[in-house]
Amino acid sequence: MTAEILCVGTELLLGNIVNTNAAFLSRELAAIGIFTYYQSVVGDNAGRLKESLALSLSRSDIVIITGGLGPTYDDLTKETVAKYFGLDMKMHEESLERLKKIFAPSNRQMTPNNEKQAMMPEDCVVFPNNYGTAPGLAVEGKNKTVIMLPGPPREMEPMYVEEIKPFLLKKQSDKIKILVSKTVHIFGIGESQVEYKLHEFMQNAINPTVAPYAKEGEVELRVTASGSDENECVSLIDPVINKIKSEIGEFIYGIDVKSLQNAVVLKLREKNLKLATAESCTGGLIGKRITEISGCSSVYLGGIISYDNSVKINKLNVRQETLKQYGAVSEQTALEMCKGAAENLNADIGVSTTGIAGPDGGSDEKPVGLVYVGVYYKNKKTGEIIHKAVKLNLARRMHKDEREMIRYAASSNALYEVLKLFIEI
Amino acid sequence: MTAEILCVGTELLLGNIVNTNAAFLSRELAAIGIFTYYQSVVGDNAGRLKESLALSLSRSDIVIITGGLGPTYDDLTKETVAKYFGLDMKMHEESLERLKKIFAPSNRQMTPNNEKQAMMPEDCVVFPNNYGTAPGLAVEGKNKTVIMLPGPPREMEPMYVEEIKPFLLKKQSDKIKILVSKTVHIFGIGESQVEYKLHEFMQNAINPTVAPYAKEGEVELRVTASGSDENECVSLIDPVINKIKSEIGEFIYGIDVKSLQNAVVLKLREKNLKLATAESCTGGLIGKRITEISGCSSVYLGGIISYDNSVKINKLNVRQETLKQYGAVSEQTALEMCKGAAENLNADIGVSTTGIAGPDGGSDEKPVGLVYVGVYYKNKKTGEIIHKAVKLNLARRMHKDEREMIRYAASSNALYEVLKLFIEI
Repeated sequence: MTAEILCVGTELLLGNIVNTNAAFLSRELAAIGIFTYYQSVVGDNAGRLKESLALSLSRSDIVIITGGLGPTYDDLTKETVAKYFGLDMKMHEESLERLKKIFAPSNRQMTPNNEKQAMMPEDCVVFPNNYGTAPGLAVEGKNKTVIMLPGPPREMEPMYVEEIKPFLLKKQSDKIKILVSKTVHIFGIGESQVEYKLHEFMQNAINPTVAPYAKEGEVELRVTASGSDENECVSLIDPVINKIKSEIGEFIYGIDVKSLQNAVVLKLREKNLKLATAESCTGGLIGKRITEISGCSSVYLGGIISYDNSVKINKLNVRQETLKQYGAVSEQTALEMCKGAAENLNADIGVSTTGIAGPDGGSDEKPVGLVYVGVYYKNKKTGEIIHKAVKLNLARRMHKDEREMIRYAASSNALYEVLKLFIEI
Repeated sequence: MTAEILCVGTELLLGNIVNTNAAFLSRELAAIGIFTYYQSVVGDNAGRLKESLALSLSRSDIVIITGGLGPTYDDLTKETVAKYFGLDMKMHEESLERLKKIFAPSNRQMTPNNEKQAMMPEDCVVFPNNYGTAPGLAVEGKNKTVIMLPGPPREMEPMYVEEIKPFLLKKQSDKIKILVSKTVHIFGIGESQVEYKLHEFMQNAINPTVAPYAKEGEVELRVTASGSDENECVSLIDPVINKIKSEIGEFIYGIDVKSLQNAVVLKLREKNLKLATAESCTGGLIGKRITEISGCSSVYLGGIISYDNSVKINKLNVRQETLKQYGAVSEQTALEMCKGAAENLNADIGVSTTGIAGPDGGSDEKPVGLVYVGVYYKNKKTGEIIHKAVKLNLARRMHKDEREMIRYAASSNALYEVLKLFIEI
């Protein structure tokens, strides 16, 4: 089965929003063995939508359309598809009841054009929308299926996962029973290097498949197996993960841990340890990332954003002579900052960043991208202390957003250094 | 003139990367009066690329292709376009020289397939690449133009701005001389409300045009005029901005100020005042956003991330009885936090957040989305003190990333409250 994605919306053609739907759907389809040969975008225009639909159906088995299911006059996806297949539009009572329930508790009145969202082509499959008002639907012709989903990603993505994926898997049910994935989380090595080391292996992998995703300095490898039950899938996946570990194990910080910050929170919770942060160049970004995790309060006490030297001195006990002799961006300052954070906030672990994020402030001796990460860990039981700093060159020359890339990479390295206290990476 | 965007790359069809190029180009083209009717994506496949190119040229005046200009065997954009127009490929000596210069200082050897990047269809226009190895190019047929650009956004975007935009403006030179834009920054009102209030006015605007952009809780209106010189453009823009102010002035926080955090830094620099932050639910996000601005160190001292109550008490002087009587998420705590930040970090202004970001931790009395923002400002000259807290309901029910949306909205409101100290919003 081949698929094609057709996104409808003038706001996409004006460039007001980036089309994340096409990427999401292509990635999800690939994970269940359906390849996307084309992605297209058209505006809210009946004529061009009809032409694009005809073209898509001429070359693909499944066409997934996003957008144009809303209540206004220029939402015309359902109507266009119905006309193409010669189907009448009818009120779908179940969807109408759902709509009424959504509007009832709020003060908003349900206007007649809202009812339009419950009008459906006859004999279609309707998918309820748990995150908005417009339901999804599927129309099935001979060997061709058109699936229509709401445009907003926060409605479309859960609808895909909860409704469309099972719907598509059922179509393939002779071949695939269930799918299980495990994700290998990698830090400190680029996607191209991962691909270089594992290229042949990844290309030849059929069951399980191995798909790489690069995300802001990290790489994830998603290993997906199909089988008749979970045990069979896992028994296919695990040897592949072992093979990956044997090649690039030194860069793997976890399996299915979601993110560096999540891995840190999980590990500290397991060890029952408290963390404090001391941030200069990252300005709060480490704290922000840790506090993305709901429930992090059991391990994260807080931190000091010491952008100005006065805060480094007064709130982190960095010595004036250290700043004078070595400068704010130095190994010595990073070391004093993380110790100060741990001691002043009464934490087991302190982590610090200080660096030149640019674009200004660099010099030959201390160029833009130079960052020091400090870690301090006092084991309260043994009294043992780990206290160290790493020097990083995070310059991303020729990048438009170099400052933000350096800061993000610095925060990732800080989280990574905390993890490295406990796992052999 | 109408345009169409054709992005080439199997990684797009696998969903490994999101197609930001299409949005960038559509937005930029719209700004110079060229509307995009279609965006398409095809893989690195000569047959499908040729078919897509033919379709695009049949319906649009300008086709912009991104991707497939690199050195490997599956980069075949130039070759496919040349064949379509019946043009021979020739070595472009100037580009070859540039390539040699790029490779010379590094230890990387320039392999023969790298030279492929300097092969060009005869008689094309070549655009140098200042951020990578593959040059861009344009092939002009009768009334049809195909422009080919490198795929990586960090190479493509500056090439568009520096080379392609002037190239396209020259094509339209009879009509448009220069373009000038001003951006109106709006906070505290949704995009749909802005459109509701200004709908007819925005739809009828021709010169200048008025285009809305919604970005994470803020709305921007870009007012763009074309004229023979800057003065003429500005004299067209300013009355339109005044009209916008008369309709929604209470929500406008600046013209051409880039972002809330930038507006804060500019205003504090103008007033020569220092800011400190005290963050609970935002966990460092306010600090992170302020420190995005290079040079913010002249106004931002730093802050305390007081996720745990012990940090609120010890580092922000929040009284234990306040926490006991009113709770950490309360007006009283917000008030003590901002005052503590200003006093302890020796700043003129302190701003604080405390709230329930969810998904856990909510109750009937204090539901998810309840956030207090506190501001403390002591005017050192007059001794006058402003000390207040606002209560916000930032719940975004049915949103997948509700926690992050609440936190971001809380940080935006905190920045907005700092601005409101000085400008009549």
